[in-house]
Amino acid sequence: MMRQVTLNDTEAIAIGAGILGTGGGGSTYLNRLRLDNELRRSGKSLPIIRADDVPDDALVCAVGGMGAPTVSNEKLQEGREIMRAVRAMEAHLRQPMHAIIIGEIGGGNALGPLVAALQLGLPAVDGDSMGRAFPELQMDTFMIYGVAPSPFALADTHGNIAIFPRIGSAKQAEDFARSLTIEMGGSAALVMPVMSGAELKRTIIRDTLSLAKRIGQAVLDCRARSMEPAATIAKLCHGRILFTGKIIDVERRTVQGFARGKLKISAFTPLGPPNELGRSLEIEFQNENLIAWLGDEVLCAVPDLITIVSLDDGEAIGTESLRYGLRVAVLGMPAPKELKTPAALAVVGPRAFGYDVDFQPLPGDLL
Amino acid sequence: MMRQVTLNDTEAIAIGAGILGTGGGGSTYLNRLRLDNELRRSGKSLPIIRADDVPDDALVCAVGGMGAPTVSNEKLQEGREIMRAVRAMEAHLRQPMHAIIIGEIGGGNALGPLVAALQLGLPAVDGDSMGRAFPELQMDTFMIYGVAPSPFALADTHGNIAIFPRIGSAKQAEDFARSLTIEMGGSAALVMPVMSGAELKRTIIRDTLSLAKRIGQAVLDCRARSMEPAATIAKLCHGRILFTGKIIDVERRTVQGFARGKLKISAFTPLGPPNELGRSLEIEFQNENLIAWLGDEVLCAVPDLITIVSLDDGEAIGTESLRYGLRVAVLGMPAPKELKTPAALAVVGPRAFGYDVDFQPLPGDLL
Repeated sequence: MMRQVTLNDTEAIAIGAGILGTGGGGSTYLNRLRLDNELRRSGKSLPIIRADDVPDDALVCAVGGMGAPTVSNEKLQEGREIMRAVRAMEAHLRQPMHAIIIGEIGGGNALGPLVAALQLGLPAVDGDSMGRAFPELQMDTFMIYGVAPSPFALADTHGNIAIFPRIGSAKQAEDFARSLTIEMGGSAALVMPVMSGAELKRTIIRDTLSLAKRIGQAVLDCRARSMEPAATIAKLCHGRILFTGKIIDVERRTVQGFARGKLKISAFTPLGPPNELGRSLEIEFQNENLIAWLGDEVLCAVPDLITIVSLDDGEAIGTESLRYGLRVAVLGMPAPKELKTPAALAVVGPRAFGYDVDFQPLPGDLL
Repeated sequence: MMRQVTLNDTEAIAIGAGILGTGGGGSTYLNRLRLDNELRRSGKSLPIIRADDVPDDALVCAVGGMGAPTVSNEKLQEGREIMRAVRAMEAHLRQPMHAIIIGEIGGGNALGPLVAALQLGLPAVDGDSMGRAFPELQMDTFMIYGVAPSPFALADTHGNIAIFPRIGSAKQAEDFARSLTIEMGGSAALVMPVMSGAELKRTIIRDTLSLAKRIGQAVLDCRARSMEPAATIAKLCHGRILFTGKIIDVERRTVQGFARGKLKISAFTPLGPPNELGRSLEIEFQNENLIAWLGDEVLCAVPDLITIVSLDDGEAIGTESLRYGLRVAVLGMPAPKELKTPAALAVVGPRAFGYDVDFQPLPGDLL
């Protein structure tokens, strides 16, 4: 169990969060720089607490960045957006927060909340509401299991803040927040949901920050021994390598605030031409990788995790960074069990993303 | 000076507000029905107070409907949107409002605030911040003369509410509110700005509700005597009849939350064909009528008022109701003096709307 985050931990957490990000959650590079800076500036470590240590009647809030990673990589944040949004929410409610919750453990969104927690002088909780990254607000265990979507807050780089004290549904919150995020330039800081300790304990996926660090540490160990890390990562996450090969096509647009598109990976083996059935893998994404096709066969689909890592060093490749020629391994990892209930699959299963296929889970659970 | 609004006043106020609406501000028909209903339901009249009666340290807020009149005429409101937005703002600030301020006296937006005031049990103030209607939030004397744009609130028909506790500029408030209004279906209730009594007295255009009632009463008098009311209206507003004729072309689109377009009016006189220079008038609009051209000559432009009324009965014709064949008079009326300072013209003059012409004011002031 993690008790703190120090400068010694940030590289491993960033690598692991990238891998859990399934292509999304934003760049870990920028947020790791911010986290290192904030740790150096404060001269302290960041305390990490367990969800079960939060009193039932304490107030906590999940936080993160909203928008397309294609945008947030190029349009830099000022650095205190999440902090300002939390402060505005505390002022609105006239009540202080007890701890900061990571909304999604995937990608840079694992690290941004830690930066904000340091700025706010609050501990962060080991866990999140996805065990990965997802593109839309309603797609997390807090919402799926009944935490109210309001109040929530958005903040932009220029100091503008919006608070939604009352919203009918999580999907409606997604629609309002998305259109405002686009108006804010395509990326914004989000505080959502605000909940009690009791609600947190009922709905959070525990220990995912520790998992990210373990994954990252394993990748670093492989690198130190000049081993390709893909198999090690897959084992640690109870998953498998779906495919290895070279990216031969990427189609990507930034539409309605999302990075959407698909890519094609050609197998390395010399058997047959690249496009022969079964020898090239197609992956479709909406910020995150959603579904992997081998011809007509679905190899893996949401909510199970599809992550593309660089074959040599195990570094996760975000959907915004996919490009022709990269040599990659595609990992398939089972989702946390909290994402595989009927209630969850209605929100994060293949059909929720418009794919007319049943969810065929990989065996096992992420953790 | 008005002291109250009763069921006997609403027809005249609606007619007058329509005429001050310069084509926008939304339909007076629906909001007059709502006002009559609310007056009947409460069994009371609505107290009207003077701006100078509001204590300097009291809290007041301007309210109105935001969106395209093409939308709000067809997508009916639930009826308590403004009330909910005001209540949410009071809860956010932990402070009650002293009175309700009409944001724009033009069109249905003159009446909606009166409905809300009745629902809230608050008086309304005789005056507004435009003396007419304008399409965008930053275009009012509160903003022009330095009242802060935040906090402001938006509410939709479904009970969703957004509060913006901190916004950098009035134009930024317009951009955020507009994109959220579109997401809310194209019309929403707005509370903006929130201000002190001292700020109100420094920035409001006084007595415009009384003016609306006077105009409407004069139109009703003309109708009772079977007189065409256009000349009477023009005189009462210190303006003139710019043109009379028949609408022969209307081009209208609902884009980015606005009703935009232009229309052409052909003169009645038998001299020459309709399109001969000088014999047909063109008006361009963005929710409101912005500029009237006679060939290359600008007859009237914002902030002066251009209102199209039905020739027979003096009823104002909103930009959403323009259609081929209507027989109309086009009235040009001078803007209130508060809209003609250099600071105001920078925001509401012809160039602020993209027209490369200088503002050539009509002689006199609206009131």
